[in-house]
Amino acid sequence: MSRVAYVNGRYLPHRLARVHVEDRGFQFADAVYEVIAIRRGAFVDEDRHLERLTRSRSVLALTAPMSETALKLVIRETVRRNRVTDGIVYLQLSRGAAPRDFAFPAHTRPSLVITVRGMRIADPSLIAAGVGVITVADQRWKRPDVKSVSLLPNVLAKQRAIEAGAYEAWQVDAQGYVSEGTSSNAWIVSAADEVITRQADTSILKGITRMAVFDILAREGVRLVERPFSVAEAKAAREAMLTSATNGVLPVVRIDGAPVGDGRPGPLALRLAAAYRAFMENAA
Amino acid sequence: MSRVAYVNGRYLPHRLARVHVEDRGFQFADAVYEVIAIRRGAFVDEDRHLERLTRSRSVLALTAPMSETALKLVIRETVRRNRVTDGIVYLQLSRGAAPRDFAFPAHTRPSLVITVRGMRIADPSLIAAGVGVITVADQRWKRPDVKSVSLLPNVLAKQRAIEAGAYEAWQVDAQGYVSEGTSSNAWIVSAADEVITRQADTSILKGITRMAVFDILAREGVRLVERPFSVAEAKAAREAMLTSATNGVLPVVRIDGAPVGDGRPGPLALRLAAAYRAFMENAA
Repeated sequence: MSRVAYVNGRYLPHRLARVHVEDRGFQFADAVYEVIAIRRGAFVDEDRHLERLTRSRSVLALTAPMSETALKLVIRETVRRNRVTDGIVYLQLSRGAAPRDFAFPAHTRPSLVITVRGMRIADPSLIAAGVGVITVADQRWKRPDVKSVSLLPNVLAKQRAIEAGAYEAWQVDAQGYVSEGTSSNAWIVSAADEVITRQADTSILKGITRMAVFDILAREGVRLVERPFSVAEAKAAREAMLTSATNGVLPVVRIDGAPVGDGRPGPLALRLAAAYRAFMENAA
Repeated sequence: MSRVAYVNGRYLPHRLARVHVEDRGFQFADAVYEVIAIRRGAFVDEDRHLERLTRSRSVLALTAPMSETALKLVIRETVRRNRVTDGIVYLQLSRGAAPRDFAFPAHTRPSLVITVRGMRIADPSLIAAGVGVITVADQRWKRPDVKSVSLLPNVLAKQRAIEAGAYEAWQVDAQGYVSEGTSSNAWIVSAADEVITRQADTSILKGITRMAVFDILAREGVRLVERPFSVAEAKAAREAMLTSATNGVLPVVRIDGAPVGDGRPGPLALRLAAAYRAFMENAA
């Protein structure tokens, strides 16, 4: 089945979906985005994703291309045309095309691109096996809390992970603390059964799945501590895991090649992964 | 006259020049670029720009889309079709289009886009008047020495400058030292007539115009010191200036609204600006 993309008011065959070479998303990374999971035809945490899009937009002073009601309709129509019931919808909003100049153009319509892809969300076989991460220096700009397409450092870090046989790279700040993965938040479980993840200040993206897991932890009575943790603390942790919209809760079983705990997915991570999958099913 | 853009092997009317929505330059800022000035039909410092493109490429592990000889021919053909004798050529090389994934795609051809624009390089009236700069926190990623399109912080800083009635923003590192402008290098002249500009480590882009000015300084016997300078030192400096391929040497007469020296372009800055213009003429 052929894919369809929405580009600035038109539904186009995927291969013909293009933006101008002077689109500011292409020349300046002057764009924000969201990835929303689709499970059994329903959107997982759509409102929180669209809220975050509004927040990212406001930091860049990007105007909304349409009302949120209209945006939801366009998202649904794009998903419908792709006949995807399990997968992701990707939205990118840029400042639009204009003669190249660093400053904002005076009159330019923002570009909105929406693509949809079928894929397995929170893949059970991946969860059962767990994944390895490597640690790398965090080289990103100072506002990773904004979900912009300024992703080159993330790309380079992720590629290093893949070349090292790992699944993800945990970026480490100048003080030696883990900030987050290249496209996921990072978590550990202490010997005291506390779940630890970095506080969402400007140093990390405030993950939507991270927030959904907060809700689960509260419901299950698991103690949550929001604070930075060091690489050494992570390596000595009882369990480790990562979260993202496409992975859900995914156990981390190796850090820089060394096993976390006994090198198998931790019981709490597996319990949270199952609870998150149940949460997704309820969205459907 | 209508503009022509080169996009992946084809010369297209500018308005039809597009890249795919999954081009990694658009989704990940996974691209590098150069801007080369054209003066009386000749390229200013073309070889140094293409050398830097090769260096930027190598940091991203981006393959060359063609030989340098072929690239020079394509640049010339694009300029010829645009009938521009004074202006700039803009080259952008991205990792190409591929299904969205942070890691490098296995088999993707890089995208090469070349555009040309007529404009006045090293504008004499701007040089005669001088410009104001503001200072802002440097929020960029850790490798601004790589000329990538990861330019969102530069865009936001430049926009703040424009809104403050200034021409450029000087970005200031965590230690209070000026790193560079959003698209130019920053310079001051001390009371001892030393020309001071930051050393080109990974904290700034190694400007091609900056290097051409080094040559001029050596020829004219002006003492150059490569070291960081603070905002306070800049505000107390005898003269200030900025350099870039499009501006040449441009006197800075105000920093954060306060005059530099007597608030008029400094004699050394004007001398260097004239020498740089002469250097450009010799290129032609």
